[in-house]
Amino acid sequence: MVKRQLLLLSSSRVHGYGFLDYASNDICNILTDNNVSSVLFIPYAKRNHDEYLRLAEKPFKKWGFNITSIHTQNPHKAIQEAEAIFVGGGNTFRLLKTLYDLDLVKTINRRVLEEGVPYIGTSAGSNVATRSIHTTNDMPIVWPPTLSALNLVPFNINPHFVDSPKDSTHMGETREDRILEYHEEPDSSTVLGLREGATLYVKDNQAIIKGICGARLYIRNEKPKDIKVGSDVSYLLQ
Amino acid sequence: MVKRQLLLLSSSRVHGYGFLDYASNDICNILTDNNVSSVLFIPYAKRNHDEYLRLAEKPFKKWGFNITSIHTQNPHKAIQEAEAIFVGGGNTFRLLKTLYDLDLVKTINRRVLEEGVPYIGTSAGSNVATRSIHTTNDMPIVWPPTLSALNLVPFNINPHFVDSPKDSTHMGETREDRILEYHEEPDSSTVLGLREGATLYVKDNQAIIKGICGARLYIRNEKPKDIKVGSDVSYLLQ
Repeated sequence: MVKRQLLLLSSSRVHGYGFLDYASNDICNILTDNNVSSVLFIPYAKRNHDEYLRLAEKPFKKWGFNITSIHTQNPHKAIQEAEAIFVGGGNTFRLLKTLYDLDLVKTINRRVLEEGVPYIGTSAGSNVATRSIHTTNDMPIVWPPTLSALNLVPFNINPHFVDSPKDSTHMGETREDRILEYHEEPDSSTVLGLREGATLYVKDNQAIIKGICGARLYIRNEKPKDIKVGSDVSYLLQ
Repeated sequence: MVKRQLLLLSSSRVHGYGFLDYASNDICNILTDNNVSSVLFIPYAKRNHDEYLRLAEKPFKKWGFNITSIHTQNPHKAIQEAEAIFVGGGNTFRLLKTLYDLDLVKTINRRVLEEGVPYIGTSAGSNVATRSIHTTNDMPIVWPPTLSALNLVPFNINPHFVDSPKDSTHMGETREDRILEYHEEPDSSTVLGLREGATLYVKDNQAIIKGICGARLYIRNEKPKDIKVGSDVSYLLQ
């Protein structure tokens, strides 16, 4: 049986809220339920790890959790001993490349799926939790060895999902255009578009849309559909 | 001496204009100056090549040029014999991957830079003309063997460039954020952001911003600057 506890956030910031604030209850619940006292932070999506740790540690400390960053310790040992993992946003290509460069992909996968270590990701941190990063919004500023990712869920996420603007004069592709273009490729995955404020909570084989905003689901060769907060989307895990 | 004639368009469509219309004079000039009677179309950025050819052939026929598509002939022979090349937009990763899969990168590079065959590109077709596609806006729906591209100019382009919106409630990165994030990487190139309606004309070692809208230039470790239509940017070729 797959054992997992994931909370995948579309974004760390939502208009009108502080860093991670809109998801604070769900983050605290997943940590408290697992008796977590210290969270391992993975800051690789941004260039300046020290600065990113200073930003990330504020909410966790406020909520009563200790936080340490993987960049100040032996990365493998840190993953092996982590009580919970929080992967911050930034550039998805840079994040995934660093996980491969440091040979951490299999270890994280094993700890989360076999040992049930809670995984919290936001933006790029949610992208890399999925089957692949084919549906990131980021620029390919670096070149990872593959787009296959941690595979903690068997579909893809598009974070910061935005609906197609009406009456836009911009002629570049909309987000929906881009996801449908991905689905022109024969071996492409289902894509869950998480609007800013939407989160995906996964416990073992159950998946629920949480947060303060819904999602939009793209299953290949089916009509896209909107998913409301509170919806059970466990069928995506099959 | 480098011999080249390039016209790199930000986009094939600009609000208020038909397909390629805003650039019709510059496209016709570069073809007429070279006594071109037939243009070779490269439709690989889109999935449906036949449909794309039907769209692309309309303006060229209207202007009095014949057009044939590479997908209906032997690709190598077509490039070898091309009087001029037009590379359409779509998905940049798919376009570049196809050029590598068919082993066309070196041949196009040689024909354009050594034999002076005119190259017209739009959006993805402009991206692949540059040093690399690190600054595409597209989703990585497929995985080319490298991000290095045709290298017809020694810098990068960001097509469909948009200025950062004021008072946006969306928390995802702006285009400028993403380009500056690319410049955090040590071996990153200069990036020319072409607003929709902007084009870059290159003749041998001279480069000029043309079209109906300006550009924004990002040189690593320098302040970004706006470039007006008509500006000489030949210094970018050095």
